[in-house]
Amino acid sequence: MEFRPRPEQYAWTFGGVAPTHRIAPGTALRLWTEDAFSGRLQRTSDKPSQVLNMAEVNPQTGPFFVEGAEPGDTLAIHIADLSPARDWAASSTIPFFGALTGTDRTALLHEPLPEQTWIYQLDRERGTVHFEAQRSQLSLELPIAPMLGTVGVAPPGREVRSSLVPDTFGGNMDTPEMRTGTTCYLGVNVEGALFSVGDGHYRQGEGESCGTAVEGAMDVTLVVELIKGGAPAWPRLEHNDAYAVVGSARPLEDAWRASQVGMVTWLGELCGLDPLDAYQLLTQISRSPLANVCDTNYSAVTKVDKALLGADRAAYGGMHRHLRELARTLV
Amino acid sequence: MEFRPRPEQYAWTFGGVAPTHRIAPGTALRLWTEDAFSGRLQRTSDKPSQVLNMAEVNPQTGPFFVEGAEPGDTLAIHIADLSPARDWAASSTIPFFGALTGTDRTALLHEPLPEQTWIYQLDRERGTVHFEAQRSQLSLELPIAPMLGTVGVAPPGREVRSSLVPDTFGGNMDTPEMRTGTTCYLGVNVEGALFSVGDGHYRQGEGESCGTAVEGAMDVTLVVELIKGGAPAWPRLEHNDAYAVVGSARPLEDAWRASQVGMVTWLGELCGLDPLDAYQLLTQISRSPLANVCDTNYSAVTKVDKALLGADRAAYGGMHRHLRELARTLV
Amino acid sequence: MEFRPRPEQYAWTFGGVAPTHRIAPGTALRLWTEDAFSGRLQRTSDKPSQVLNMAEVNPQTGPFFVEGAEPGDTLAIHIADLSPARDWAASSTIPFFGALTGTDRTALLHEPLPEQTWIYQLDRERGTVHFEAQRSQLSLELPIAPMLGTVGVAPPGREVRSSLVPDTFGGNMDTPEMRTGTTCYLGVNVEGALFSVGDGHYRQGEGESCGTAVEGAMDVTLVVELIKGGAPAWPRLEHNDAYAVVGSARPLEDAWRASQVGMVTWLGELCGLDPLDAYQLLTQISRSPLANVCDTNYSAVTKVDKALLGADRAAYGGMHRHLRELARTLV
Amino acid sequence: MEFRPRPEQYAWTFGGVAPTHRIAPGTALRLWTEDAFSGRLQRTSDKPSQVLNMAEVNPQTGPFFVEGAEPGDTLAIHIADLSPARDWAASSTIPFFGALTGTDRTALLHEPLPEQTWIYQLDRERGTVHFEAQRSQLSLELPIAPMLGTVGVAPPGREVRSSLVPDTFGGNMDTPEMRTGTTCYLGVNVEGALFSVGDGHYRQGEGESCGTAVEGAMDVTLVVELIKGGAPAWPRLEHNDAYAVVGSARPLEDAWRASQVGMVTWLGELCGLDPLDAYQLLTQISRSPLANVCDTNYSAVTKVDKALLGADRAAYGGMHRHLRELARTLV
Repeated sequence: MEFRPRPEQYAWTFGGVAPTHRIAPGTALRLWTEDAFSGRLQRTSDKPSQVLNMAEVNPQTGPFFVEGAEPGDTLAIHIADLSPARDWAASSTIPFFGALTGTDRTALLHEPLPEQTWIYQLDRERGTVHFEAQRSQLSLELPIAPMLGTVGVAPPGREVRSSLVPDTFGGNMDTPEMRTGTTCYLGVNVEGALFSVGDGHYRQGEGESCGTAVEGAMDVTLVVELIKGGAPAWPRLEHNDAYAVVGSARPLEDAWRASQVGMVTWLGELCGLDPLDAYQLLTQISRSPLANVCDTNYSAVTKVDKALLGADRAAYGGMHRHLRELARTLV
Repeated sequence: MEFRPRPEQYAWTFGGVAPTHRIAPGTALRLWTEDAFSGRLQRTSDKPSQVLNMAEVNPQTGPFFVEGAEPGDTLAIHIADLSPARDWAASSTIPFFGALTGTDRTALLHEPLPEQTWIYQLDRERGTVHFEAQRSQLSLELPIAPMLGTVGVAPPGREVRSSLVPDTFGGNMDTPEMRTGTTCYLGVNVEGALFSVGDGHYRQGEGESCGTAVEGAMDVTLVVELIKGGAPAWPRLEHNDAYAVVGSARPLEDAWRASQVGMVTWLGELCGLDPLDAYQLLTQISRSPLANVCDTNYSAVTKVDKALLGADRAAYGGMHRHLRELARTLV
Repeated sequence: MEFRPRPEQYAWTFGGVAPTHRIAPGTALRLWTEDAFSGRLQRTSDKPSQVLNMAEVNPQTGPFFVEGAEPGDTLAIHIADLSPARDWAASSTIPFFGALTGTDRTALLHEPLPEQTWIYQLDRERGTVHFEAQRSQLSLELPIAPMLGTVGVAPPGREVRSSLVPDTFGGNMDTPEMRTGTTCYLGVNVEGALFSVGDGHYRQGEGESCGTAVEGAMDVTLVVELIKGGAPAWPRLEHNDAYAVVGSARPLEDAWRASQVGMVTWLGELCGLDPLDAYQLLTQISRSPLANVCDTNYSAVTKVDKALLGADRAAYGGMHRHLRELARTLV
Repeated sequence: MEFRPRPEQYAWTFGGVAPTHRIAPGTALRLWTEDAFSGRLQRTSDKPSQVLNMAEVNPQTGPFFVEGAEPGDTLAIHIADLSPARDWAASSTIPFFGALTGTDRTALLHEPLPEQTWIYQLDRERGTVHFEAQRSQLSLELPIAPMLGTVGVAPPGREVRSSLVPDTFGGNMDTPEMRTGTTCYLGVNVEGALFSVGDGHYRQGEGESCGTAVEGAMDVTLVVELIKGGAPAWPRLEHNDAYAVVGSARPLEDAWRASQVGMVTWLGELCGLDPLDAYQLLTQISRSPLANVCDTNYSAVTKVDKALLGADRAAYGGMHRHLRELARTLV
C-alpha cells in the first residue's frame, strides 16, 4: 500500500480523525511524511513566528485502521526503511519552546531567545547533512541517522491529543531509537488502533535540546502486524540487538521511572524474573539515553542489550524477526 | 605515590578533612579504594539495615592537597587504570533509597521494598561478574566495566558535603563515563583542591536504578595535573573519542540542563561557536546517557563525539593527550 | 435555566461533546452535578477497584454553548451558590492514585496502598460533615466548605481532554478557591466556549492529598457572562477580597510559576506595573495555597488580597461586582 | 542573655562553626540579626552584583550550644518577639537567582533579568513598609509582618551547609509561618544542637518569588527549651491556632510530600490515628501555603488548624503553652 497525503489529508491529532485507510495485519506501507514545519521553513531568513501556523505543525500521515485490532491488543510497527524525501532539512529556535529556554510551563520573565533558522543540505552520496553556523564560523558534515519523531495510536479515555504530545499511546516521543530496523509495540486503545506516523528527522541528538531536529520530509516503509492481547503500559521498541521502553511524563525522572518500571516488567516476561531481581539486573545493565526534554511530556528511554541476557528471548513469539524478514523482501 | 588507607583514614566528606598527602602536579598515584558499603556487605544474607553503619558509607581515599592549586584553577585527573581489588562485589536494595521506591524526599506512605543482597563473583579471566537472581531463576555473566562512582574536590562556600552527594564539585556522580582512560576536569574551590576518590563499581547501568551498583574495592591509578584558571561550572570529562559534561541537580531535567549549558559553553570554547549556534549543533549531536537518578542530586551527562567536530580541538591545550601519554608509561 | 442531567447526558471530556444547551450571555443556570465517583461509592465497604468504572468518573454537567463566544474571548462564570445535594459524601484511596503513593507516572515498585473508603454524613443544621476514622478511633465534625473541583471550557488545538485533567482551559483544578462568590475567567478556545462544571466537594484541603475530597452531588447556581477579547493565558479567579490565578503543570514548581507569571501579567493590567515591579510586589504579597498535587497536571494558586492594592482596580470593567449583583437577585 | 554580633562574629553556615555562647534550656535570648545582604544594599541605585559579597550573605547570629542537647533530642525555639531594628529594608533581583528566572540549576540560555533594587521605608506608627515601583508608577503601604527566614541547627552526617540552604535541619526555609508567637521544633543532630537564627523579613509573600523579601535587620527575642528524644524528621511549627510541618526539597512536589508525610506522622502522634486515616483526614483539612521556590531546596508547608482537631492535643506535653507563658514574662 502506498500513500502520499495531500495537505488537506494531514492529521494533526492522535484520535479524533477518520482513518485514511483500512489495512489488514501483515500489510506493508510505503508512505511519505511531510516535515514538522509542514514544509514552511525553507530559508535561513524564515522566522517560525512569521511563516509557521502553529495550529498546523507536525502533520501526521494516517491514521490507519488495522482490521481486527481491539483495545488491549498490541500493534507491532516495523520500520523497514526511512529515506530522506528531500535534499534539505530545517531546524529552528521557536520563541518559548525548547529545553534551554523559559516556556509556557516553565514560565519565567525572560524575553524569548532569538529566532534563528538553520537549513541543512543533504549529501546523499556521503550520507551527510551540512551544518552551517549562522552567528559564528563553523561548518560540519554530520552523518544522517534518519528517524521518526512521531509514531502513535489513538489515546484511551475518549481523548484526542495534539500530534506534539508523547504519552502512553506513543506519539511525539522524538527518540533516535525509532529508526530503520526498529519494531515498535504499542498498546491498542480503540478499535482499529488508528495509528499514524510523521515528523521525520534526518538526525537528532538525545534530548532534542532546542526543540527541533534536522526536520525533513521522509519516505517511510513500514510493516504492520497485530498481536492479540499483551498491550504494554508504555511503548516498547525492539532492535536486532536491544530492547527498549519509552516513558513520557514530567518531571524527567518520572518519564524515566515509567520506562524503568516498563523494563522491569518486560524483563520479567522475557526472563521469568521476579521484579526485585529484575530491578537489580536492570541497575547493572540499563542504558538510559534521553529522547526529548522539550515536548509537552518529556520522553526517556530504558534500553537493554540483548547480548547481556544470554539465550534468545524471542519477545512476542519472535515477532521482530518475523517482521524483519518480511521487511527484507520489500526494500 | 602509593596509598592504601586504613579504615581510620577514610574520608566521609568532601571538604572538612585534613589532606592525607600533598602532591605536586604531574604526580601519579596508585590508590586503593574500599567499596561503598565499607566492605560490610559480604553475603546474600546480609541486610543493609543490619550490617551497615549509614554514617560510614562511601569511604573516600584522600583528600590530596595539590600544590599550587587555587580557587578558579582546574584540576585534571586522568584515570590511568581501574582494576577490581577483590574477587567479588556486592549490591543491595536499601530501605527508602533508590530510583523506584519512595524515599526521604519523594516521601510516600508505602512500606519499604524488601531488602535483598546480591553478591557478584568476579571471573578475572573472562572479565565478567556473575549475576545470580535471588528470588527467581536466572544467572548471567556480565562483562566488567570498572568505573569510579566518586571523584570530587572540596566544595565552595565553606561547605562540607557527604561523600554521597554529587554537585558542581564532582562527588558522587555515579556515571559509567568515569572509567579507565577518562580525564576529569574539576574547578578548584579551595587552596590545594583537596580531591578524593572512591566508590568503585565493577559495572553499573545508566541511572543506577536500585541505588547500588556492582560495588567493589578497586585498585586505582591516576595522573593528576593542574591547569591555572579555566574552572568549569560543572565537571567535564574527556575520553579519547568524546567530550562530556556532568550536571547534578533535581529535578532530573535541571541536572541535564546544567550539563547541556555546560556543553554549549565548552563547544563555544572549542569551536568558537556563538551560544545559539552551539545550542543548534548540540541539538543534533548530543548523546545524553543518564548517570544516577537515586542520589541526593541526580546526575545527567551530555556527551559529544569528537569525530563529529571535525578537526582536533585539543581541549585545555591537549591536556588529555598529555595525561594519556604519562599514563601509558605507568600501566 | 435549570438542568439536571440524566446519566446518559453526562460529559466525560472537555471538548469533543455536543452542547446540551445554548445560552445567551447573562444567563443564570441552576444545575445539578453528580459526584466524581458517579454516585457509585456509597458504603465504607465499597472498594473503588470493584465498584467504579474508571472510564466513567468525574461526570460533567454541560457543555453549554455560549452564544457569541469566539476564540480569544473571555468567559466569566460566577458561582452564585453551591449547596450539597445529598446528605452524605464519600472519599477513598484509589490504587496508584494520589499524592503520597506511587502512580502510573511516579512509577515505582511498591504494592498499592490499601483501598479504604470513608463516608461523610452531612449535618445541614450545623453545616458540618462527620469524619469517622476507619482503621483507628477518631471522629470529628468538619465545617462544610462547598467548592467545585471542575470548571472548564473546550481546549485549544483540536484536543479533547478527560474531565480529570486541569490545564490552561481550566478543568479539574481542584482548588478550594472555586467556591460560592467566586468569578472564574477562562479564555475561550472554540466557538461557543463549551463550558461544563462538575466534581463538587463538600470540603477539601489544599493539595487534595489522597486524590479524592469529600465528594458529593451538588446544586450549583451560576451566572455566565461573556467578555469580548482579553483571554487570559491561565484561569483567573476573583473573590470579593482577592484576585487569584491557577496554573497547572508538572513538576509543581512549573504549575506555580505559571500562576505567578499569570499574576505578574494581571497586576500589570490592574495597576499599570512594569513586569519587574510586579515581580517585586508579588514577592512581598503573594499567597500561594496549593490546589491539587494528584491530578494529571498539578495545580497551584497565586492569590493577592485586594486590600493591599489600595484603590479599587475593577478587573474586566467591574465584571465581578456586576455578576455578584446579578447573583444576589437569584439566591 | 543578650547578643548583638559584630560582623566578624557572623556565622555563614549551619555546622562547622564554634558556638558564640552556651545556654541552658529555658534561657531567653535577646538577639540582633543583620539583614541577608549583610547591610550592603542601601540605595535603589545599589546593584547586588556590585555591592554584595556573595560569600557573605545571610549572616547568622549564633550558633548557640544548648547544654544537654544530644542527637535525637528535640529543640523547641519559641519566637517571643520580632521587631524591625532599622527604619528601612531592601529587596532586589539578583542575576540568575529567583523563581521566575533561569538559575545555575534551571540552567537556560537567557541573559539575566535586570538588576533592580527597591528600598522600603518603615512607618513604625502605622506598622507599614512603603513599596515604591522603580520602573513604573505605583506606591503602596504594606502592613509589616515580621518573620525569620532562617532558623536552624547543625546538620547530620558531618555536613556543613551554607546559611542559604533549607533542609531537615531547618535553615533558610523562608516561610512567613516563622513569626512572633511560633514555636519551632527541630531535631538535634550534634551535641549542643548549635542553633542559629537570621534573615529577618519585615514581610514576605508565600514563595518569595524574586528570591529576596523585605530584608531588614531584626531585634529577636527567643525562649529555648530542650525535649529529650522525639526528634521529628522535618521542622515542625506550632502556633496558638495551628500545627505546621516544613519540607524542603526539589522538585517542589517532594518538598510538599515531605511536609505532608511529616504531618501524617504528627497527626498520628497527636490523635492516635492510623496513617491511612491521617492521610484521609489531612486530605480534607490541609492548608498548603508555599514558603520559598527560590532557594537551594524549595520549602513547602503543611498546616492544620487546631480547632478542626477537636479537643486540646497538647503537642510535646504542652510545650508551646509553656513557652508562650515564659515569653509573656519577657516582652
